Amino acid sequence: MSQEDIMARDYFRACAEELDLRVQVDDLGCMYATLDGLETTKPIIMGSHLDSVERGGRFDGVLGVIAGVEVIRTLVDHGIQPRRPVTVMNFTNEEGARFEPAMMTSGILAGKFSKDEMFQKRDRAGVTFGEALAASGYQGDAENRVKEATAYLELHIEQGPVLERERLSIGVVDCVVGMTCYEFVVTGASNHAGTTPMNMRRDAFFTAVEVVQQLRQEFDALGDRDLVYTMGRVNVYPNIHTVIPNRVVFTVEARHKHAHVIQAVERIMEGVTGRRGGCDVTAAKVWGRDTVWFDPQICQHVEEAVQGLGYSYQRMVSGAGHDAQFVASFLPSAMIFVPSVGGRSHCEDELTSYEDCEKGVNVLLRTVLSLLESR
Amino acid sequence: MSQEDIMARDYFRACAEELDLRVQVDDLGCMYATLDGLETTKPIIMGSHLDSVERGGRFDGVLGVIAGVEVIRTLVDHGIQPRRPVTVMNFTNEEGARFEPAMMTSGILAGKFSKDEMFQKRDRAGVTFGEALAASGYQGDAENRVKEATAYLELHIEQGPVLERERLSIGVVDCVVGMTCYEFVVTGASNHAGTTPMNMRRDAFFTAVEVVQQLRQEFDALGDRDLVYTMGRVNVYPNIHTVIPNRVVFTVEARHKHAHVIQAVERIMEGVTGRRGGCDVTAAKVWGRDTVWFDPQICQHVEEAVQGLGYSYQRMVSGAGHDAQFVASFLPSAMIFVPSVGGRSHCEDELTSYEDCEKGVNVLLRTVLSLLESR
Repeated sequence: MSQEDIMARDYFRACAEELDLRVQVDDLGCMYATLDGLETTKPIIMGSHLDSVERGGRFDGVLGVIAGVEVIRTLVDHGIQPRRPVTVMNFTNEEGARFEPAMMTSGILAGKFSKDEMFQKRDRAGVTFGEALAASGYQGDAENRVKEATAYLELHIEQGPVLERERLSIGVVDCVVGMTCYEFVVTGASNHAGTTPMNMRRDAFFTAVEVVQQLRQEFDALGDRDLVYTMGRVNVYPNIHTVIPNRVVFTVEARHKHAHVIQAVERIMEGVTGRRGGCDVTAAKVWGRDTVWFDPQICQHVEEAVQGLGYSYQRMVSGAGHDAQFVASFLPSAMIFVPSVGGRSHCEDELTSYEDCEKGVNVLLRTVLSLLESR
Repeated sequence: MSQEDIMARDYFRACAEELDLRVQVDDLGCMYATLDGLETTKPIIMGSHLDSVERGGRFDGVLGVIAGVEVIRTLVDHGIQPRRPVTVMNFTNEEGARFEPAMMTSGILAGKFSKDEMFQKRDRAGVTFGEALAASGYQGDAENRVKEATAYLELHIEQGPVLERERLSIGVVDCVVGMTCYEFVVTGASNHAGTTPMNMRRDAFFTAVEVVQQLRQEFDALGDRDLVYTMGRVNVYPNIHTVIPNRVVFTVEARHKHAHVIQAVERIMEGVTGRRGGCDVTAAKVWGRDTVWFDPQICQHVEEAVQGLGYSYQRMVSGAGHDAQFVASFLPSAMIFVPSVGGRSHCEDELTSYEDCEKGVNVLLRTVLSLLESR
């Protein structure tokens, strides 16, 4: 809810008002711009988020909202009054950049997070999310919350390198992959680097390195090219060049769409614990989430739209989290990916070519038209 | 030059005065307690340091000074006036705990460090070493500096586990081993842990782990059990569990008495640099020192003293630094080690049994007597 976030909201509101859309805001600051339909229930919702990380790019989230406006503009330009309402949504605080966690308001809407708890989250200056939201002028009424929909569609940049590498224009997203995250602690003994013979050491770093190598070998031996794993946080203690390390703490985070692969990864991690090289190795699960599968019928509508347009595409997974993964728990949902140049995101050189953006919007439009015709 | 350091100095001075020794202090605060001899030149000096690290033990340094007092007390008790002066020395600031570097005043005496530079070293509160020394009341005259000696003998705890493991009472120290220290930098690329397939990653941590394993294999293949090496400082960036590391910086420090082994280690380190796993690996030497060999004749006197007493012993190296390594550059020097329980030092549970201390003092006494008789 920075000044920049408010400016983005004002721009979105102005675009909507220019198209005579009905703009509503719920109690979480989520915005809804609706082109009314012949019927009043079960809107088709296109959504994403206008907030960004600090020094982030212009596409992450913003594309999905602006694309929704463009789809409605196209309907309006062609004088089409849809059978059902068509709504563009802007979720508040998807990034969690100022107030953690990420996907805060889609999480509240889905019942995963408590509104009371979330409104007490504080930024570094001690301001609560609730205070910042009230001060923004963008806090509306709980009655405006989305409750039902024909479909929720989120067009988003891939934030990864796969579509670019495969030279494809569109990703039809099957799911947001599940993940597991373990924290390993290797405990040895610190001694003087000069006076302790190698065979009398209990070097926690050397043991940690051996554990890491064994984990990599066993993960790779699963032979599953969709599995990704990362050891991103590694701390060595006491971290002095003349002292043998007595403690290493590192995280192992793995993601895959199939639960049985995640379970195999967890068995491997638990299998390398115990006594090794004079050190104690422990592993504890600190975080995990199940794969969220999108609605097969809505995905089918998306895929047929892509095929109808003749664009190159593949079915794929999302490795990153999105509002759609929470929304999917109460609305039939699907996501459309467009390529990220170099796979880069959350940085200023985040880029998706305008040609690819246009294709994404066309897929979104065609999917909306297809959903309006169906049922 | 803490209050505790001054109390230790006062105690040492009181012991010396009780024995009617001549107590002098030089411009660096180093103390000399001398039993005059029949001749006035070329004293036999026993020395070490009374300063300690914070929460350090009771033996490191202190043993060598108190042992010297006990040797002189024994001479006095037996009414022996030695042929040459016998001096006990207390070096100022061996540990470098408040004012870096370690072995500061032996370094100045040896001409390795500049007195002006050292006197400007500041503690965390901004006080200079020169100011603290002047305030201590223990700053004397540069004329009192040690310039010549028959021998410099330093009895010290091993600060390592070798004598205890070998069940030996005494170590006759040949040298303080040389060392080399390199800093490695592995540079890859950070990407999202969820969206980047394994085969498109440039993970700096995985490359660093492979470099570490190769270094360990090649070091171990040298087949030299006296070689020790430590990778004690390891930092991974950005150190976030959901981000692929783009940078790892780690130190490799190796020690051995023979220069050709150190050179082989350096060749191995330089050989693993370059392009690996999509990352750049660089290595730069940040620190090194040559092996300091003690005087073979003085070592011979020590060894014969041990043999005469019938104590178990071995020739060995010192992996840690001591004042004796600087003193050796201008006085014929030798060191005597006694066992450290569990190899522990620089901690409150540092321990050497009183039986082992007594044996060390007996070796020191017999070496002094032997040196008094010689030449």
